[in-house]
Amino acid sequence: MAHNAFYAQSGGVTAVINASACAVIETCRRHPDRIGKVYAGHNGIIGALTEDLIDVNRESDEAIAALRHTPGGAFGSCRYKLKDIETHRTQYERLIEVFRAHDIRYFFYNGGGDSADTCLKVSQLSEKLGYPLTAIHVPKTVDNDLPITDNSPGFGSVAKYIATSTLEASLDIASMCATSTKVFVLEVMGRHAGWIAASGALAGSGEGEPPHLIIFPEVAFNREAVMARVDEAVKTYGYCVIVVSEGARYEDGTFLADSGNTDAFGHRQLGGVAPTLAGMVKQDLGYKYHWAVADYLQRAARHLASRTDVEQAYAVGEKAVELALAGKNSMMPAIKRVSNTPYAWTIEPAPLAEVANREKFMPREYIREDGFGITEACRQYLSPLIQGEDFPPFENGLPKVAKLALHRVERKLPAFKI
Amino acid sequence: MAHNAFYAQSGGVTAVINASACAVIETCRRHPDRIGKVYAGHNGIIGALTEDLIDVNRESDEAIAALRHTPGGAFGSCRYKLKDIETHRTQYERLIEVFRAHDIRYFFYNGGGDSADTCLKVSQLSEKLGYPLTAIHVPKTVDNDLPITDNSPGFGSVAKYIATSTLEASLDIASMCATSTKVFVLEVMGRHAGWIAASGALAGSGEGEPPHLIIFPEVAFNREAVMARVDEAVKTYGYCVIVVSEGARYEDGTFLADSGNTDAFGHRQLGGVAPTLAGMVKQDLGYKYHWAVADYLQRAARHLASRTDVEQAYAVGEKAVELALAGKNSMMPAIKRVSNTPYAWTIEPAPLAEVANREKFMPREYIREDGFGITEACRQYLSPLIQGEDFPPFENGLPKVAKLALHRVERKLPAFKI
Repeated sequence: MAHNAFYAQSGGVTAVINASACAVIETCRRHPDRIGKVYAGHNGIIGALTEDLIDVNRESDEAIAALRHTPGGAFGSCRYKLKDIETHRTQYERLIEVFRAHDIRYFFYNGGGDSADTCLKVSQLSEKLGYPLTAIHVPKTVDNDLPITDNSPGFGSVAKYIATSTLEASLDIASMCATSTKVFVLEVMGRHAGWIAASGALAGSGEGEPPHLIIFPEVAFNREAVMARVDEAVKTYGYCVIVVSEGARYEDGTFLADSGNTDAFGHRQLGGVAPTLAGMVKQDLGYKYHWAVADYLQRAARHLASRTDVEQAYAVGEKAVELALAGKNSMMPAIKRVSNTPYAWTIEPAPLAEVANREKFMPREYIREDGFGITEACRQYLSPLIQGEDFPPFENGLPKVAKLALHRVERKLPAFKI
Repeated sequence: MAHNAFYAQSGGVTAVINASACAVIETCRRHPDRIGKVYAGHNGIIGALTEDLIDVNRESDEAIAALRHTPGGAFGSCRYKLKDIETHRTQYERLIEVFRAHDIRYFFYNGGGDSADTCLKVSQLSEKLGYPLTAIHVPKTVDNDLPITDNSPGFGSVAKYIATSTLEASLDIASMCATSTKVFVLEVMGRHAGWIAASGALAGSGEGEPPHLIIFPEVAFNREAVMARVDEAVKTYGYCVIVVSEGARYEDGTFLADSGNTDAFGHRQLGGVAPTLAGMVKQDLGYKYHWAVADYLQRAARHLASRTDVEQAYAVGEKAVELALAGKNSMMPAIKRVSNTPYAWTIEPAPLAEVANREKFMPREYIREDGFGITEACRQYLSPLIQGEDFPPFENGLPKVAKLALHRVERKLPAFKI
């Protein structure tokens, strides 16, 4: 007998999280004997808690297919971490109550480390309560900080965007440096892990090729050492391109962006790392600078997605449903690298207990000894992840995106306050 | 008898200025009976003044063809304005001396308003001195502020990048706004003219579709009015997307970015408009915000170039040579819009005397009455300019760019100090 499935998106969205959604939904639709309806949580897990469910069955096949090339989170995502299960058991019980009310027996939760943890807890509690739920976590995070999986869907596309943008902007600076900007700073995401910053290094590899400096959150920031390197690059190559992680920090853990930047109103929150670093360049070296902060542009840039990333995002979504149908519970489909050249990968299940609450940082052997670049091992790890293009269809000069109807499912339960 | 040609790039580079270079060189190569060698100025006009010439003839056809999809300025550009001709005649005379020494009779200068002016003056002086020079200005500027021409090559690609980035980032914010960021600010180029900011509006057109506010340099910034609009958008749609020009300013002409932002060292230069505006949102409304500053990324983004823009950049370069060969002097090939739907255009010569030193701002009828958006007339003007894609070839996950040999021409004259 067929039961229903629930899908939700969690945390910061990516260029390809909807490709995973597309895969989950399309794969469910291929199994009408086992899976009846697919419901999506409006704004992630909040949709489940508040019984705010989107009736995915009323979306056309075309609309669902278009999710594959639509950035953002089509059903709404959220920054909402379920609290500790011992003291806030009511939330978990509510989830199961909602699932029961709508005959939901498959729970697909698409997110990062926090959502893997939630997924695991929901699975454990449902078992304890005797409710037959199969919970599968679908990996996603631009930060690439999930353990076990070769990489996290979403990361490869950011990496491709940052590497491409670094390459393009570097050509701009190189052509103007004789009489204009000498130092360019690009700030990228990754507060704890330097994977995205590292991907900027893919823009060049030969002697003197930009970027000339990568600043990782994993390496304590030393102003003197950094400025000496900047000066050397400008004197040797005529200019200096820096890719800096938003998480760059001093030895004592203070973020660079927190280093005293204030606006007219005394707000510290304003400071970005890029303008802070650019200000140091100006003060210490006197060079003309420009800086850019890519912010959401980098994780939303579906127009420049990595085909590898899109394929992997789709594959983990598809595999999630297959695992659920095979009776696997509390699992995450993880990407396993089979070979580097040519890049080959498979999807294999990983127990959620091994995934939850573990962050994967850049290993020291991926960071060059001087701390300002990546090693060959890192390049070999990163390079396959940006391979291939998967341009979306364009309409009237702009990427075409999915338009969903987002019909709501009728509520069956009393309201629940979160 | 064949004589030589000189080509130089001037001012801020674009995603397609090399497409114009490609066109000038390829068209010259098709006329060996009239044009002997093509020399390029290293770092723009400085290369002519210092006799630092690149021997373009030693570049392969393949390398020149690859310029069409390579951003930046392949021969080097410069921010260097020739001084007043009356008091600094030596510079202009030096140019003609260099041209004479290398039998250069065709002068192609690829740039914005300043370089049109230089081109005109060089042409006038060569006539006065009896040196037979044909001077043609090839239009380029991301700011779209050149007069006469329908648009300036370089602008259409920035417009496409900004519209696409606005669309993509808006989908990100829309999916997170329930529990996270409510206001997103994207800062774009255009210190004097709001054309680039206006292009952000192409991301949406329906009621409530982002961007919700455009802030133009042409409209005096009124903090109260802006904040009221931001608040209204957040309350109505759940979030607010703002595209703001770097040139946004108060009634008295003070730039927003100059409004008191200081870093730890008291530098004012650090402030971007986006963080300043975001700080106001936080202070006045208390909403969580994010901001991005696209900076060079926008004008270097060849990977997302408008096909229309690439074609026009090529067409003005080609026409420049044809005009020169037809004996037209002191001209700029200008784009003429023949029809809007479908967009049709031709290239027609415009006298440099009418081009030089005139800036084209957004006309009032292109800005919505409330000052926060564009009119239908503006949309009809802008929309054709972002049509079509022209993705570069990719290699190893990154855009493939031209690799030039950049051989130098042997000097024949004594050194000249600029």
